[in-house]
Amino acid sequence: MYDGARKKRRLMDILVVGSVAFDSVETPFGKADEVLGGSATYFSAAASYFADVGMVAVVGEDFPDEHVEMLKDRGVDTRGLKKVPGKTFRWKGRYDYDLNQAHTLETHLNVFSEFKPAIPEDYRDTPFVFLANIDPELQMEVLEQVNEPRLVACDTMNFWIEGKPEALRRLLKNVELFVINEAEAREFAGEPSLMKAARKILDSGPTTLIVKRGEYGAIMFNGDSIFSAPAYPLEDIFDPTGAGDSFAGGLIGYLANTGDLSENNIRKAIVFGSVMASFNVEAFSLERLAGLSHDDIRSRYREFKRLTHFEDV
Amino acid sequence: MYDGARKKRRLMDILVVGSVAFDSVETPFGKADEVLGGSATYFSAAASYFADVGMVAVVGEDFPDEHVEMLKDRGVDTRGLKKVPGKTFRWKGRYDYDLNQAHTLETHLNVFSEFKPAIPEDYRDTPFVFLANIDPELQMEVLEQVNEPRLVACDTMNFWIEGKPEALRRLLKNVELFVINEAEAREFAGEPSLMKAARKILDSGPTTLIVKRGEYGAIMFNGDSIFSAPAYPLEDIFDPTGAGDSFAGGLIGYLANTGDLSENNIRKAIVFGSVMASFNVEAFSLERLAGLSHDDIRSRYREFKRLTHFEDV
Repeated sequence: MYDGARKKRRLMDILVVGSVAFDSVETPFGKADEVLGGSATYFSAAASYFADVGMVAVVGEDFPDEHVEMLKDRGVDTRGLKKVPGKTFRWKGRYDYDLNQAHTLETHLNVFSEFKPAIPEDYRDTPFVFLANIDPELQMEVLEQVNEPRLVACDTMNFWIEGKPEALRRLLKNVELFVINEAEAREFAGEPSLMKAARKILDSGPTTLIVKRGEYGAIMFNGDSIFSAPAYPLEDIFDPTGAGDSFAGGLIGYLANTGDLSENNIRKAIVFGSVMASFNVEAFSLERLAGLSHDDIRSRYREFKRLTHFEDV
Repeated sequence: MYDGARKKRRLMDILVVGSVAFDSVETPFGKADEVLGGSATYFSAAASYFADVGMVAVVGEDFPDEHVEMLKDRGVDTRGLKKVPGKTFRWKGRYDYDLNQAHTLETHLNVFSEFKPAIPEDYRDTPFVFLANIDPELQMEVLEQVNEPRLVACDTMNFWIEGKPEALRRLLKNVELFVINEAEAREFAGEPSLMKAARKILDSGPTTLIVKRGEYGAIMFNGDSIFSAPAYPLEDIFDPTGAGDSFAGGLIGYLANTGDLSENNIRKAIVFGSVMASFNVEAFSLERLAGLSHDDIRSRYREFKRLTHFEDV
């Protein structure tokens, strides 16, 4: 049962550590310049519909207050968002008709290159922790600062798989839920068969692996159980930026909202993640993601139900 | 309700027109030389678990009786399988780790290049007709020889989309159910968005479009309704040859078995198609597909149910 009204107003439910960025994006449907992006931003906005989120990230002096206000309006606790001298992280990318594949044109880490996540005292007892895609050594440093969270989830990317595989392996021993792209799952495991890759990854630490497959949805591996969820079919995927992080936001948000880590509930959480990702890709930046109603979310969840329904024999 | 025992023994349920071939295949898991293949073969074997199938195809003098006997043992009516002077169609291909993509090494059409489907008198009132992937002009000639079937379904490929687009368009005006690969659907419609491509294709004749997505399953478009079915996750896809035709065999087989063309039943039929395709890719040629039990089929259908299950909110 998901009821937006049940969202708890108490201590924080979820801590996310990741990036806040200005993205410049070109897709077949248009262009956006220096719009708000970053993994922690997308995650927080999506998760904020389900639970109380605190973000730990860094921005430069050029980061406008209106973005912070928008996040606060969504109930996000931004005390861990530090403003430091210098410029905010900037990413410039292009998507062609294959919207599963981002072509990075420019990356300027700026203040993000010196990012050392310091977890505020108030955040240390947060039960759900999401380590968005950053250096696995920093992800590990976050874990050293928190007190036995109920669930630790993380994401990563090919850059860290290739550059810091040992640090990533150490991290995974401390992670329950690992969210990763399909090509990266195969690469990390060195295994072209996704099933075999999943088994290897589950043997290395996490109890649940969720593989993101872009417009093909997501697939979860949990013990011997597998759950396959489609993506929501859209006429136009306007801008895929942030899809993976909004997915993670809906997923962890729903788990925190319900406090239920059973496999059946993880399946529902994956569908809520898919719902949030499907809204996110309908517009640039957080244009769509920041202005949803709980009815929008519930109604799209039901569309996923209809999309996958078939009768027993 | 699917019950193997309910398979009807009467006049033929399904007519399939397509190829019978010798395939030489190399995959990361092994090699097979000159094994039985062809679209009509895979389709008939898969459909034979559900309904009575008659095949119309051509082979050369080198085609051994044992293959015909195997098909007859599966209840396939082979009176439309003509043996003519010359050699049987041969295809040689390789799959690398991307098992969605066949690399054709050699194609020798041999007797298939002169194939003119002649529908035996006894076959002309068959209610379900499947036109496997052959020249759309030949597919049209088949339709001119049959008497108002209840359902006409067809497949095609990029070779015909590029070479005979007008013939294919004419054919589609006479087809209710169109089964096609994802890349080919986009190519045929000239539309990178699959949703828009589907709409265009549905506007051109068929009432139901089923897009095959390899290891990502299949997606059906029917009016405003969409159904997304996953593929069965396998550790090793031993040989993908014939997956699309076994899928079509299970699909049309189940529709013929039940005689129910409602959308809910088409959804079940798509899952049975996915079940048959998943068995087929577990071995070379028809090694797995020819020796299944109805319990195998039902039990894998139930695994698809569990694979996709999530609760309502």
